Amino acid sequence: MLYFASDYQESACEPILRRLLETAGEHLTAYGSDRFCASAQEKIRLACDAPKAEVRFLTGGTQTNQVAIDSLLKPWEGVVAVESGHVAAHEAGAIEWSGHKVLTLPAHDGKADANDLRAMLERWRGDANREHIVEPGMLYISHPTEDGTLYTRAELAALSEVCRAYGIPLYVDGARLAYGLAAYGADVTLPVLARYADAFYIGGTKCGALIGEALVFPNGNLPERFLSRVKQHGALLAKGWASGLQFDVLFTDGLYERLGAHAIEMAERLKAGLIARGCELFRDSPTNQQFIVADDALLQKLDGEVAYGFWENLPDGRTAIRFATNWATRPEDVDALLAFL
Amino acid sequence: MLYFASDYQESACEPILRRLLETAGEHLTAYGSDRFCASAQEKIRLACDAPKAEVRFLTGGTQTNQVAIDSLLKPWEGVVAVESGHVAAHEAGAIEWSGHKVLTLPAHDGKADANDLRAMLERWRGDANREHIVEPGMLYISHPTEDGTLYTRAELAALSEVCRAYGIPLYVDGARLAYGLAAYGADVTLPVLARYADAFYIGGTKCGALIGEALVFPNGNLPERFLSRVKQHGALLAKGWASGLQFDVLFTDGLYERLGAHAIEMAERLKAGLIARGCELFRDSPTNQQFIVADDALLQKLDGEVAYGFWENLPDGRTAIRFATNWATRPEDVDALLAFL
Amino acid sequence: MLYFASDYQESACEPILRRLLETAGEHLTAYGSDRFCASAQEKIRLACDAPKAEVRFLTGGTQTNQVAIDSLLKPWEGVVAVESGHVAAHEAGAIEWSGHKVLTLPAHDGKADANDLRAMLERWRGDANREHIVEPGMLYISHPTEDGTLYTRAELAALSEVCRAYGIPLYVDGARLAYGLAAYGADVTLPVLARYADAFYIGGTKCGALIGEALVFPNGNLPERFLSRVKQHGALLAKGWASGLQFDVLFTDGLYERLGAHAIEMAERLKAGLIARGCELFRDSPTNQQFIVADDALLQKLDGEVAYGFWENLPDGRTAIRFATNWATRPEDVDALLAFL
Amino acid sequence: MLYFASDYQESACEPILRRLLETAGEHLTAYGSDRFCASAQEKIRLACDAPKAEVRFLTGGTQTNQVAIDSLLKPWEGVVAVESGHVAAHEAGAIEWSGHKVLTLPAHDGKADANDLRAMLERWRGDANREHIVEPGMLYISHPTEDGTLYTRAELAALSEVCRAYGIPLYVDGARLAYGLAAYGADVTLPVLARYADAFYIGGTKCGALIGEALVFPNGNLPERFLSRVKQHGALLAKGWASGLQFDVLFTDGLYERLGAHAIEMAERLKAGLIARGCELFRDSPTNQQFIVADDALLQKLDGEVAYGFWENLPDGRTAIRFATNWATRPEDVDALLAFL
Repeated sequence: MLYFASDYQESACEPILRRLLETAGEHLTAYGSDRFCASAQEKIRLACDAPKAEVRFLTGGTQTNQVAIDSLLKPWEGVVAVESGHVAAHEAGAIEWSGHKVLTLPAHDGKADANDLRAMLERWRGDANREHIVEPGMLYISHPTEDGTLYTRAELAALSEVCRAYGIPLYVDGARLAYGLAAYGADVTLPVLARYADAFYIGGTKCGALIGEALVFPNGNLPERFLSRVKQHGALLAKGWASGLQFDVLFTDGLYERLGAHAIEMAERLKAGLIARGCELFRDSPTNQQFIVADDALLQKLDGEVAYGFWENLPDGRTAIRFATNWATRPEDVDALLAFL
Repeated sequence: MLYFASDYQESACEPILRRLLETAGEHLTAYGSDRFCASAQEKIRLACDAPKAEVRFLTGGTQTNQVAIDSLLKPWEGVVAVESGHVAAHEAGAIEWSGHKVLTLPAHDGKADANDLRAMLERWRGDANREHIVEPGMLYISHPTEDGTLYTRAELAALSEVCRAYGIPLYVDGARLAYGLAAYGADVTLPVLARYADAFYIGGTKCGALIGEALVFPNGNLPERFLSRVKQHGALLAKGWASGLQFDVLFTDGLYERLGAHAIEMAERLKAGLIARGCELFRDSPTNQQFIVADDALLQKLDGEVAYGFWENLPDGRTAIRFATNWATRPEDVDALLAFL
Repeated sequence: MLYFASDYQESACEPILRRLLETAGEHLTAYGSDRFCASAQEKIRLACDAPKAEVRFLTGGTQTNQVAIDSLLKPWEGVVAVESGHVAAHEAGAIEWSGHKVLTLPAHDGKADANDLRAMLERWRGDANREHIVEPGMLYISHPTEDGTLYTRAELAALSEVCRAYGIPLYVDGARLAYGLAAYGADVTLPVLARYADAFYIGGTKCGALIGEALVFPNGNLPERFLSRVKQHGALLAKGWASGLQFDVLFTDGLYERLGAHAIEMAERLKAGLIARGCELFRDSPTNQQFIVADDALLQKLDGEVAYGFWENLPDGRTAIRFATNWATRPEDVDALLAFL
Repeated sequence: MLYFASDYQESACEPILRRLLETAGEHLTAYGSDRFCASAQEKIRLACDAPKAEVRFLTGGTQTNQVAIDSLLKPWEGVVAVESGHVAAHEAGAIEWSGHKVLTLPAHDGKADANDLRAMLERWRGDANREHIVEPGMLYISHPTEDGTLYTRAELAALSEVCRAYGIPLYVDGARLAYGLAAYGADVTLPVLARYADAFYIGGTKCGALIGEALVFPNGNLPERFLSRVKQHGALLAKGWASGLQFDVLFTDGLYERLGAHAIEMAERLKAGLIARGCELFRDSPTNQQFIVADDALLQKLDGEVAYGFWENLPDGRTAIRFATNWATRPEDVDALLAFL
């Protein structure tokens, strides 16, 4: 079986697993007060060029989004996201369960558009009934998006400008951030994120870590009583050091960048091969997610041989499917997939 | 510094860390559908003598309690616990945040009493205003308790009998279960728990694991749509295998029992030494938590030399403090502590 | 000033106010256990031809929707509604605040389409990731809709058929039900509603009552512990008789029907006059809400003279506005409005 | 039957019912923007000697408490109340359902003690684990209490002093406020409440109104986006004028005071008669709630003849019961009750 179904179905990268083993016998203080967390926080501050940044470690994208959004919103506010955004579509209602509406914008290649956002905010402000309508209290975007696309620096700046003009925070879900940073031609870097976003998370689970995400408040804007809120959400780890350690390793000697770059190299190798073989791309993605159009014959051929992701049924009866590379994808597997197709 | 402050401030036991490292390069399916989870589930079913048991893996006691309680209760019901119960006292309101009241009973050495429970349930049933009073919908107990005490099998049976007579589930928080199972003279075993409880969790974080708790529904009584509810709580791990692996290791060749037994041996060694030195025990505990009465001179002496847990201020001006041993405590550290006192 | 802004800006109909006055000096039992509630419940059962119906009285549409939806859904489910549905658009997030997502369908003249619903339910069932997606747990529709349109009996039957095939309840928001029942050519009656819906409310606030809505569970399917859930929502009135009395009056001698019929007569008189005067209708509505297209000159003319409702800005720069008649609208005011235009 | 069971089982006072009838045919703007609300707000400001007070009208004690508490607390905070407080005991979990824990203090004759409160606040501040313990974010007291007792001005001042020293608001549930204001020797007036409380509500439902409570923020400290939060709770009335009107009537020509004084006169007449007849008082209450100790013979005698309130079973096998007078109690009924006993 060739595995291209997703980017969270590998173990963790070996340096993290080795470092974990080295802690055997160590005493480590609780709730993120340990030396690994401190070291990882400092390295992330440096990588983001954000000396005042507050960094906290959580486990899993849905948890991180729920905690971040609930902490950044006032109780009566909602979060704005595109319809295909993870919080809108694939979190089993975790945001609503915490009391907040997800207000949706149309997605443009998976991305939010600054004009759409401005129009929504203006519409709310200008509506005589606005007290009866959920107030848009923050913007959620994913980078890379769920569709494998990327914001440009200019697009991010435009969204940030609208958010700041209207006084709402911009939050970036970076579940696959390593792959966004490494994509060919991408101009959004960690310092760029730290400049334009009010909060973002650096994804670990999908990018080489065992389990863990690093939530960054780049301007030191940690929400009030954040630790208690994390606990209230059931998200506080006694052994917070286990998350901190992973990011300490990932942000040592450029490992996070290298893991991202590898996945992108594999994705580009795959894309080039797909094109060379005449495969129809469903969309042109610069990230680790590659999408093709498959007919039934191809689907049958793949069945039991290649693990891929179903994406959507197309009007012409064919199917869009996804091949995801990741930090651990082997070139020989890419070549085997291409040979198989 | 000698560390006796708590039982969650060590790394994980080496067999777990080694097994994690061995997964490097492996492909593992997501959300708990992997072979480690399957193996751990089967081993736990065997250990509990509960062939129909459903087992799920979560991370952290507060999260596990919140998910279990919210799933076992109907939306209008509350959970009954003693005043010193973790869900009542030290979870930052996580239960209330999920919409449920914690209804408290008096604690008898940290334990709930079956007669108190029956009286509460009768009072609710007999109250003409009961529709205006939160309905007691389940019982929460900790074993060992927060006070380091243990239920006997007879006490557990009595609580279970009341719960079943009134149709409410009995749920046991086993954050420190390894230490309860190993305590000298303890007669509550895993099969006993599985027989009397409707749900319980086997604590990993405080008992040798890296991070993780195993939530057991011994009669196959998994709450409806459990995976979606876990996700809604932000508690679903993509890499669920990482929790499953830990329990697979812990339940291989009696490791969980051995880790518990070691902590108890250290605790008994400590207790014997404390008594021999004429230390006043605050309470006689059979578990890994040992409590003594300290005057100010002793507190000053400990300061900076021994990490211990503050327990409570006593009426006579002295202080109750806690020394916790754990699966990793070294006998030489126990002896050093005794020599130091 | 001529008042056509809305249908909840009049006092209550005189028979209700008189009946309230007659209670002076009376002793009335609490929480809906009184004789007025009992009488109103019986009359509503008769009017709905639903002898097993359970009827409860609440205050206000948002409250009734929140309580009904939260009681009909399981905690992890969401409610399906069209984008323009009141629960989706104009309840300040009351549904999400109670923990549930509102899943939206496109609106066809304000109405939900059975095929759209079936497609959504099929999509959820067929999605391999459905455990990560909010489960559609019930359908919410408004009759009349927020756009002043009406379901036909056949449309209602088709929606009901889909709901029953998929095992989800159909709930109808009847905030303006009197006007829907009285509309010329309408074929949805109370017995029809009781047959096809699993729950619905008969609006009082907008239809002649002082304050109050009657929530009907036509098949005796009152949700478990309903009174406690109402209390938990802060929606239980000690003097529940005050709501029951209003519906007792409204359902005596056909008053509810007459109030509805009067508003429709006024609306048709207005519509005929508007057409005769060459006004452009924004949409052809059979209910008490009439919509026209207004240019800036007309808006300026209306300003300070006629209270109307803003509806939406049109692409051509003109504006859709709403004139609402109600149970209390005087024919001379309709004529004055027509003369003024 | 003689009715002394409670104070919310009468219709409303006739001036309110008459005034409601007089609105027949009137046009009244929505959501509390009407002239009745404006007039009532101004009269309440005057009565409270609080020119900056913000006043809002809600329906029912549980709703008012839920909205007030949820608006005054931050999401992670809890509300402090005595164990017998309405929010702790008899609101079906409405506070927890809105996400907040009720932290309980012992009740002293139904009242909170400033020293107990200070001790709780100090304990929280001084606890090294306070981030894991719900933060006491406000104080809730009832005046009169659920036990029919009253705070003195000095007690209120002492509680207020502690609250202000620790920066938490003091909120007073005045469900039966009219009876507290009128009690013989009571020194807590509306201006006193406005001076010491940060929010309080003036009860209507139990004090002569049809339905309605007036929530007062005496220092203009209306919580942010209050109207939207009220709507989110399902508590916003389109016909808010109906509540405003009632308080406009109650605060005209001292009606609220007179209604309270009447109930107290009846209660004192009853108490004097009870004492004269040698009845054993369960507690000496200065308010409209009078409590006696009854043996089984007396309970049997009352059965079917006198509606009274069950209070509690006493250790000696007898029963404490309550007779409640109210604004509508007739002297001849008091005399009949006394003659009957």
